[in-house]
Amino acid sequence: MFENKNTTPLSEIGEFGLIDHLTKNFPVIHPSTLKGVGDDAAVLNLNEGQSVVTTDLLIEGVHFDLSYVPLKHLGYKSVMVNLSDVYAMNAHPTQITVSLAVSNRFPLEALEELYSGIALACKNYKVDLVGGDTSSSSTGLIISITAVGQAEEKKITYRSGAKANDLLVVSGDLGGAYMGLQVLEREKEVFKVSPNNQPDLALYSYCVERQLKPEARKDIIELLEEVEIVPNAMIDISDGLSSEVFHLSKASGVGCDIYEEKLPADPQTSSTAEEFKINSSTALLNGGEDYELLMAIKTEDYDKIKGHPLLTPIGHFTDQKEVCNLITGLRQSIPLQAQGWKNFNKDESA
Amino acid sequence: MFENKNTTPLSEIGEFGLIDHLTKNFPVIHPSTLKGVGDDAAVLNLNEGQSVVTTDLLIEGVHFDLSYVPLKHLGYKSVMVNLSDVYAMNAHPTQITVSLAVSNRFPLEALEELYSGIALACKNYKVDLVGGDTSSSSTGLIISITAVGQAEEKKITYRSGAKANDLLVVSGDLGGAYMGLQVLEREKEVFKVSPNNQPDLALYSYCVERQLKPEARKDIIELLEEVEIVPNAMIDISDGLSSEVFHLSKASGVGCDIYEEKLPADPQTSSTAEEFKINSSTALLNGGEDYELLMAIKTEDYDKIKGHPLLTPIGHFTDQKEVCNLITGLRQSIPLQAQGWKNFNKDESA
Repeated sequence: MFENKNTTPLSEIGEFGLIDHLTKNFPVIHPSTLKGVGDDAAVLNLNEGQSVVTTDLLIEGVHFDLSYVPLKHLGYKSVMVNLSDVYAMNAHPTQITVSLAVSNRFPLEALEELYSGIALACKNYKVDLVGGDTSSSSTGLIISITAVGQAEEKKITYRSGAKANDLLVVSGDLGGAYMGLQVLEREKEVFKVSPNNQPDLALYSYCVERQLKPEARKDIIELLEEVEIVPNAMIDISDGLSSEVFHLSKASGVGCDIYEEKLPADPQTSSTAEEFKINSSTALLNGGEDYELLMAIKTEDYDKIKGHPLLTPIGHFTDQKEVCNLITGLRQSIPLQAQGWKNFNKDESA
Repeated sequence: MFENKNTTPLSEIGEFGLIDHLTKNFPVIHPSTLKGVGDDAAVLNLNEGQSVVTTDLLIEGVHFDLSYVPLKHLGYKSVMVNLSDVYAMNAHPTQITVSLAVSNRFPLEALEELYSGIALACKNYKVDLVGGDTSSSSTGLIISITAVGQAEEKKITYRSGAKANDLLVVSGDLGGAYMGLQVLEREKEVFKVSPNNQPDLALYSYCVERQLKPEARKDIIELLEEVEIVPNAMIDISDGLSSEVFHLSKASGVGCDIYEEKLPADPQTSSTAEEFKINSSTALLNGGEDYELLMAIKTEDYDKIKGHPLLTPIGHFTDQKEVCNLITGLRQSIPLQAQGWKNFNKDESA
């Protein structure tokens, strides 16, 4: 993607120069960041409340495809994936570290693009970049991000606190990122056949943006604070709703009934699913990467969120241990299938 | 390396089953670990003192070669690399996260081996495994580890605190890991020509162990506590002594004189260097991966460490900003060359 420009090969820069160059414009915002990039480790003052730590590894060809993912978006999304895990604990992210491994096919300018997305994410979500390194890779691009966050002890939400009769509530809408992926994969195939054909993605802008530039739900954590709700349990939806429902149910030792007709979808998600002849409910239940939050809310808290456009009750927990059902529009109860993104399936990992 | 055994393909297990399986025998030791593996993030109580966070990414074919590195050793060493960074801050490691990406060529048993090394490291160094995940990789093995540690505020040592006249002190001995690597690379070439020739590594056991199973210098941090020394500055030696001396000097705005004859070497390192026709000082100055600690000690603290077998003064800092000299056995002063491991050199990254 940088083939035709004047570019700077990484071999001209060297390891230490590179990380200095890429991180020089990152300001330190948080008072808890005592020392960021530039020593053997970052030094943090995490004396208030409790701390959460989460880490994710993103591999080219497995988690992203650079033939249609712009590097700036990739940098942004890589941070979102981690911040989403912090929000899922009902905590506020404060610091991240970013380690990269890159092959020589990437010039300096490509990494600058990637870091501009990381910088934008740090700015928008008020987190400090405090460490990481760069090294070479024999093949593609590998991004490893660790996020640190903080929360008051009484606010931290685990997966394991859901109780029978709690409402199952989801933020935003579902399936968009999955349909965006279908659109991008189709355009990639079209491009292979006719490289001069400019794709018109305007019809799919919402879904494509959900896939390429998701936002972690900082606003939902702030909303919960505002209405004084601490969920009994929470998880973020990275592998698809069904899969996450099973995680919550298993960790909490409860079951769950979900109402198909309640699943929130953007109209574009539904129309795109129709165009692709994909059952809309399948996209909503099993499409991954929406990075919405899924939570167990006490019934007495229902009035605080009733009718809120960002929070949709889609079912409730039951005392049927680990039994998860989908109640269809015709009031049939069928066992929910978790078709979350499974690694190591032979057809998925090249 | 597992070709001839009854093995379990990863595709039979799936992502969630795999991480559960690999981490099930990891006990939680630290009271600061409130929640380890199994939620969106680990939850830690880091209310005492300050926290340090460091992360490293290890890539097959770049940082390790599985043709001679046993997986158990690799797991152990991957943890050491990170703990060494924590000790270099004069802090105590408390938790780690481990993320893996693996191609299908690895059976379950290979990952169990890797994790047995990680488990041994956690046990020996009393750290808790609190998170991470596994995913597929299109080619080799990728290991990403993040370590968290804690220290009293007044004990944390940065790279930037060295002052003119401070002694430059190094722990243990140098160059062994580098010579071990030379031995292993030679045996690999021999094996290619005569696969039935069993290598006799007994003559090189010290160097090979320094390369394959390094230990992070927990004992040195404990020793410094015991003799009540807080170094003015500290760094761990991962890229070679010269390179780290430059880092300390640059960060502290001072210079440094190092005495060639003071550099500590194990006799086996010297004899192996001689056999390989490598200048012994070159191995000591530029060989990486020793994971020793290099520190700036106030002259008034000298008596506390004088003659200690684990700590060797090898020079002193000067007010010549960023001017680092090697004083040879013939009392010549020559500019030190930092030949640390540079990534992105075309001949190093395939």
